[in-house]
Amino acid sequence: MNIAIVGVGLIGGSLALSLKELGIFERIIGVDKSKENQEKALELGLVDEFMSLDKAISASKAIVLAAPVDSIEKMILDVLNKIEDQIVVDMGSTKVRILNKIADHPKRGRYLAAHPMAGTEYSGPQAAIRGLFADKVMVYVEAFKTDEDAFELCDQIIERLHMKTVFMNALEHDMHTAYVSHISHLTSFALALTVLEKEKSHGRIFELAGSGFESTVRLAKSSSDMWTPIFKQNRENVLEVLEEHINQLKNLHDTLEKEDYTELKRLINRSNRIQRIIK
Amino acid sequence: MNIAIVGVGLIGGSLALSLKELGIFERIIGVDKSKENQEKALELGLVDEFMSLDKAISASKAIVLAAPVDSIEKMILDVLNKIEDQIVVDMGSTKVRILNKIADHPKRGRYLAAHPMAGTEYSGPQAAIRGLFADKVMVYVEAFKTDEDAFELCDQIIERLHMKTVFMNALEHDMHTAYVSHISHLTSFALALTVLEKEKSHGRIFELAGSGFESTVRLAKSSSDMWTPIFKQNRENVLEVLEEHINQLKNLHDTLEKEDYTELKRLINRSNRIQRIIK
Repeated sequence: MNIAIVGVGLIGGSLALSLKELGIFERIIGVDKSKENQEKALELGLVDEFMSLDKAISASKAIVLAAPVDSIEKMILDVLNKIEDQIVVDMGSTKVRILNKIADHPKRGRYLAAHPMAGTEYSGPQAAIRGLFADKVMVYVEAFKTDEDAFELCDQIIERLHMKTVFMNALEHDMHTAYVSHISHLTSFALALTVLEKEKSHGRIFELAGSGFESTVRLAKSSSDMWTPIFKQNRENVLEVLEEHINQLKNLHDTLEKEDYTELKRLINRSNRIQRIIK
Repeated sequence: MNIAIVGVGLIGGSLALSLKELGIFERIIGVDKSKENQEKALELGLVDEFMSLDKAISASKAIVLAAPVDSIEKMILDVLNKIEDQIVVDMGSTKVRILNKIADHPKRGRYLAAHPMAGTEYSGPQAAIRGLFADKVMVYVEAFKTDEDAFELCDQIIERLHMKTVFMNALEHDMHTAYVSHISHLTSFALALTVLEKEKSHGRIFELAGSGFESTVRLAKSSSDMWTPIFKQNRENVLEVLEEHINQLKNLHDTLEKEDYTELKRLINRSNRIQRIIK
């Protein structure tokens, strides 16, 4: 039994490494439109060989889509049209649009929407890391629409990757990821732009950058090829959370401007409640 | 030769640990108005004993101020009035106001403004960690106003802590820290407030929180006792950088709202330049 991974970058490449260790599949077949990625992935031993999408589909029991979400959206109907009883697992970061697109497809049951809440700010095959998925959350979206045998096969593998699982509907998923993932990237991009702009006029700004700054700005290294399509596909939720975040910042600004330090302290204390949630 | 550390929390406690290892001082004397902190610090072996500020001053060659910046501001004249030729090292995060306050003091030469760009989101004696200062930056502010012998003694110790050093004037220091430290905390506080608010109405938000979210929000665990006075003392710079950051976020918002994905991609690519600066 073979598996095809479409998009051998951070997610696809890390998955390939884990699957190789588990030894569940005979061959791990890569599909990637970038020649450069293909060469790097082979050099790093992430996959056994590269094939065209069509050949990879016929040669595999399961096809994992780990490309940017706009590519997944473009290829999904074509992939579903071409499969017989293979399983298609979509690992993209947004789900509402793609699930609408395939809702009435005769092969809908062979498709599983799964979003691993795992990653780093790096991308490409060289960003693939061993053990990326261990102890992370895999979100299954509308999994009840996936055929039992297809879901079971995937879920058994996910369990062997030591992932926790959560079930959600597509609206919930896209709203929640806007709040705990997409907004984090936008604040990092904005923070990097703010400070880079200041450095241009004043210089020396970064001599004082410590670990706190690094931690809030590191996501600004993330790839625009991956993130622009995510913001596009999740536009309404992202705009909503951005507006709320800007309001919170404005409120902190106005509180400081009018020197209401009792209120400022209260707001900081309230934000401290985050420590009950993240360790 | 003894040293007194006023404020045995994250910074003061970590310094105590390093100084103990180096064995430069006979005794490390703690000063802390909190009984609870005193007990914890003794239990953890951070300092040899606690004394009142007055007794600690007479018993020491050097007095390190590692309390919140409002406490340092309140005590500084008293401390300078009471010393003879001891050295006073102020490790606070803001410098303009305190340097103005002591500018004409007859003991100005015994005072050194030094700000270690090191820390974590935790506070109190239990937050003290070994090796906190190694490879971090120590900023000396207006060091040319400190007596040669006082500066030399401190700088030799800083060197033995394996810190890098940077010299700045007070205006530069407070502006630069607003950009690479204070704003990071404000964005984290605001992000925590945004998401905690949403959790209240929707629940389940945090099930999907991954390492990216944690990294951008972890500073929101920081103590309001430490940060409210920093924002107060550096109010003008902090307001300026907050306004610029809000403008960058608004610009990202408007770009996404009008679906200008070419521009959105360009902004993300530009923010990626941060990777030349942070590793």
